[in-house]
Amino acid sequence: MKKIKKALISVSDKKDLGLLLKKLTKFKVDIISSGGTYKEIKKLGYKCTEISKYTGSPEILNGRVKTLHPKIHAGILSKRNNKKHIKELKNNNFSEIDLVIVNFYPFENIVDKSSNHKKIIENIDIGGPTMVRAAAKNYNDVTVITSVKFYSNLIDELEINNGCTSLDFRQEMSEIAFTETAFYDSVISSYFNFNSKKKFKEKRVLHGKLIKELRYGENPHQKASLYSKYSDIGLDQLNGKELSFNNYGDIFASLSISRSLPKNIGTVIVKHSNPCGVSTNNNHKNSYLSALASDPISAFGGVVSCNFKINTSIAKEMSKNFYEVIIGIGIEKNALKILKNKKNLRIIDCSRMKENNFENIIFNFGNFLVQNNDNIKFTSKNFKVVSKKKPSSKMMKNLISTFNICRFVKSNGIVISNGDSTIGIGSGQPSRLDSCNIAISKMQKFYKKNNNEDIIAASDAFFPFVDGIETLVQAGVKAIVQPFGSIRDKEIIKFANQMDIILVFSKTRHFRH
Amino acid sequence: MKKIKKALISVSDKKDLGLLLKKLTKFKVDIISSGGTYKEIKKLGYKCTEISKYTGSPEILNGRVKTLHPKIHAGILSKRNNKKHIKELKNNNFSEIDLVIVNFYPFENIVDKSSNHKKIIENIDIGGPTMVRAAAKNYNDVTVITSVKFYSNLIDELEINNGCTSLDFRQEMSEIAFTETAFYDSVISSYFNFNSKKKFKEKRVLHGKLIKELRYGENPHQKASLYSKYSDIGLDQLNGKELSFNNYGDIFASLSISRSLPKNIGTVIVKHSNPCGVSTNNNHKNSYLSALASDPISAFGGVVSCNFKINTSIAKEMSKNFYEVIIGIGIEKNALKILKNKKNLRIIDCSRMKENNFENIIFNFGNFLVQNNDNIKFTSKNFKVVSKKKPSSKMMKNLISTFNICRFVKSNGIVISNGDSTIGIGSGQPSRLDSCNIAISKMQKFYKKNNNEDIIAASDAFFPFVDGIETLVQAGVKAIVQPFGSIRDKEIIKFANQMDIILVFSKTRHFRH
Repeated sequence: MKKIKKALISVSDKKDLGLLLKKLTKFKVDIISSGGTYKEIKKLGYKCTEISKYTGSPEILNGRVKTLHPKIHAGILSKRNNKKHIKELKNNNFSEIDLVIVNFYPFENIVDKSSNHKKIIENIDIGGPTMVRAAAKNYNDVTVITSVKFYSNLIDELEINNGCTSLDFRQEMSEIAFTETAFYDSVISSYFNFNSKKKFKEKRVLHGKLIKELRYGENPHQKASLYSKYSDIGLDQLNGKELSFNNYGDIFASLSISRSLPKNIGTVIVKHSNPCGVSTNNNHKNSYLSALASDPISAFGGVVSCNFKINTSIAKEMSKNFYEVIIGIGIEKNALKILKNKKNLRIIDCSRMKENNFENIIFNFGNFLVQNNDNIKFTSKNFKVVSKKKPSSKMMKNLISTFNICRFVKSNGIVISNGDSTIGIGSGQPSRLDSCNIAISKMQKFYKKNNNEDIIAASDAFFPFVDGIETLVQAGVKAIVQPFGSIRDKEIIKFANQMDIILVFSKTRHFRH
Repeated sequence: MKKIKKALISVSDKKDLGLLLKKLTKFKVDIISSGGTYKEIKKLGYKCTEISKYTGSPEILNGRVKTLHPKIHAGILSKRNNKKHIKELKNNNFSEIDLVIVNFYPFENIVDKSSNHKKIIENIDIGGPTMVRAAAKNYNDVTVITSVKFYSNLIDELEINNGCTSLDFRQEMSEIAFTETAFYDSVISSYFNFNSKKKFKEKRVLHGKLIKELRYGENPHQKASLYSKYSDIGLDQLNGKELSFNNYGDIFASLSISRSLPKNIGTVIVKHSNPCGVSTNNNHKNSYLSALASDPISAFGGVVSCNFKINTSIAKEMSKNFYEVIIGIGIEKNALKILKNKKNLRIIDCSRMKENNFENIIFNFGNFLVQNNDNIKFTSKNFKVVSKKKPSSKMMKNLISTFNICRFVKSNGIVISNGDSTIGIGSGQPSRLDSCNIAISKMQKFYKKNNNEDIIAASDAFFPFVDGIETLVQAGVKAIVQPFGSIRDKEIIKFANQMDIILVFSKTRHFRH
């Protein structure tokens, strides 16, 4: 137990200061402060010594160095059970400071609100984090409070322990304090890194604020939480049950795909973070219906994401199926009304979500793999027609968009499409031929051929043998896009020419494991 | 351009100090220092003012507060183009400090080396990070160097610019400095958090040191790097090409499975981070051969992980197949010799890898989902026999181990096993029935039934309908383990009894998406 005799208060967030001062006064705690906090304390009618008066050092450089003084830091850092320390404090006329209450103005808010680099830099707090770190280091003797949230805990401590705090409490507050300073500097570091765009530094620090403790993780026995570098992730839930861990995973997966599609015409249906139907159509209702038609059985219980505003006619169609989550860039008022008839259906408006998915980070065994995401938009420069038969410009466009969908399909992705919509997706197979067969069986099950349509296919990586392509051609595929790279590429081109199909090679491979 | 007139040096790593001092002396830079650095500078024969002499403040509290002095921090933080600041420095007899060279003793090394909590806490540096942060904030005027690695850059700067540094250089060093302080406090924070085991804090900071810039990411056009909270991830590569991003992904996936198997008898073959063969057998060679037999076609180009020491007879067998990576807990000398005949084959000894995979963190759009990993060892308490036919204790053990493998299979995982080894794995499907069919087709393709063997199956989640179970039973499966939870559970139990098979329910579901 440590008695609180002297406290230093310097807070950006002045909320509940009165509550705290009332309690500190009750236990006869001396208070030191400066600047805005000093003014606020006086305004609230409490006694307080100004830091410059306390240290005897004038406040200079617009307050940049006021607390960086031995009298402050010796007061915080001295060991109370060390005779040498006690003597040295006395000799220098220094006193022990037992409580440090400091909260920082959130640096992320400064970055959000301002684009003035000089002003942003000016806001970096030097004195505050130093006091917090000093107090946190010396938690054996000193209490540090870094957030208004813990005022009530402090008040309870003081009440229960008659003006003292317990070691457990001080240690807990110290832990939180080091997370605060690490977080603060991580935000600064990522602000600088973002500006300089150098990605693979010698050290990386990643930070997030708790957005929500989730009911559970991928499975009910796993604890889970959602963090973000933003205070608000920009997803507005308009209806339905709480979002689960798996919902978030599927939402992010579907948004990655949605954002890769041409604007305002794409629908994606995702199951287990894998697409089971993707379609683009200027007619929004048809866009949705075609995505659903790709694999209506798998779509059951899936997540639908439209990269346009959901209207009433789509809402009526969507209501006929069971989905976990429906996402739109806005939802028309009446459409929302219709969808809300399903009480549990999670409805998300993603209009406010601004962040792009630049980096992919995978954690394992205390290590993490970082990579740039595979989401660069394709241009025709990425592709080369290698067959004798040449695609029309429309066909080429369809092949490119089918290939784009294919890069979001996991493990030996094969996508068969009618141009605008997927009609068979094969995924999750250790063998490419197996994926072809799965895609074909989906197509045969659900697709009703329209006479004018050419069926086309994309593969995320090259075919190692002719067999995969052969299987697709036998199933009716008329044009194929795949990365080059097999030692049998020539054989594959020859086969394509024999079969009189269009074969296009991509310069880039698009594994997603 | 800013001329360097005065430098403060306080370094834990004393390497190359001589080189630097020679250059600073050439450009007539005054040097301030203290403690070990001061002694080293004197030993090297250079002039240097001690900090306590410079500030006029005695060194107290065993050096805890020596640099936390206005004379130091005003010298660092003053704006050189601000008349008020210049005047205030003069009035207080303070001087500008233009260069701050500070590196920290790596806190992670302290934690690694010591289990003495007090000693660890004592090592938290307060003064150093404060000077670094102050100098980094004021990079417009001040140069900050936080690692020996940048001495040569500093020397080049001074040479090129005749004793000055450029703004670009100062800004780059400032960026690195804030990453250093964030990293330092993140290590402290994670040390505290690890001790307190509270996982879902209001703020999370994750840190890693660059272990290796990888040739590329999942695909050649994606940049990628590997980071770790450790300086050494504990994987020793004994042969072969450089490990790729996908290799690391598969290595971590295979190790997660290997570590869940009974010790010293398990082999796992992974392709695209999904298992395609898993086996346990006291005879190590049979363990490997059975894992391979599960799906020899998919195993081609895969990653094999043995949770035992690889001997010559296994090495000979392994040499017959093409693998990307082979992992063992040690590899016998002669076995290594045999495997090394394949020049490109990556051979990994994972004996030194200590970390367990406690947390799963998934990044998306600036957010991250954190969950406890699904790797708790099963006991029979997790299971309930629901069929009339009861399993023998050996059968129960086999069902549990098959269920354990199943939780590492992605998306509607179905595993068929002969007890010791997988003989058919279905994965990556939006429909559970499809996964059953894939698993069965693998079995029918590769498995030769032994008369004494009972074929059993596991499903990672419940069967929503009888159809999945019916398909498995028709294919010859005699016992099934699955989580409970379908509204048709009763119907499924009834069917199991009609078919006279064993049905065991698990209390927990094990999705892996």
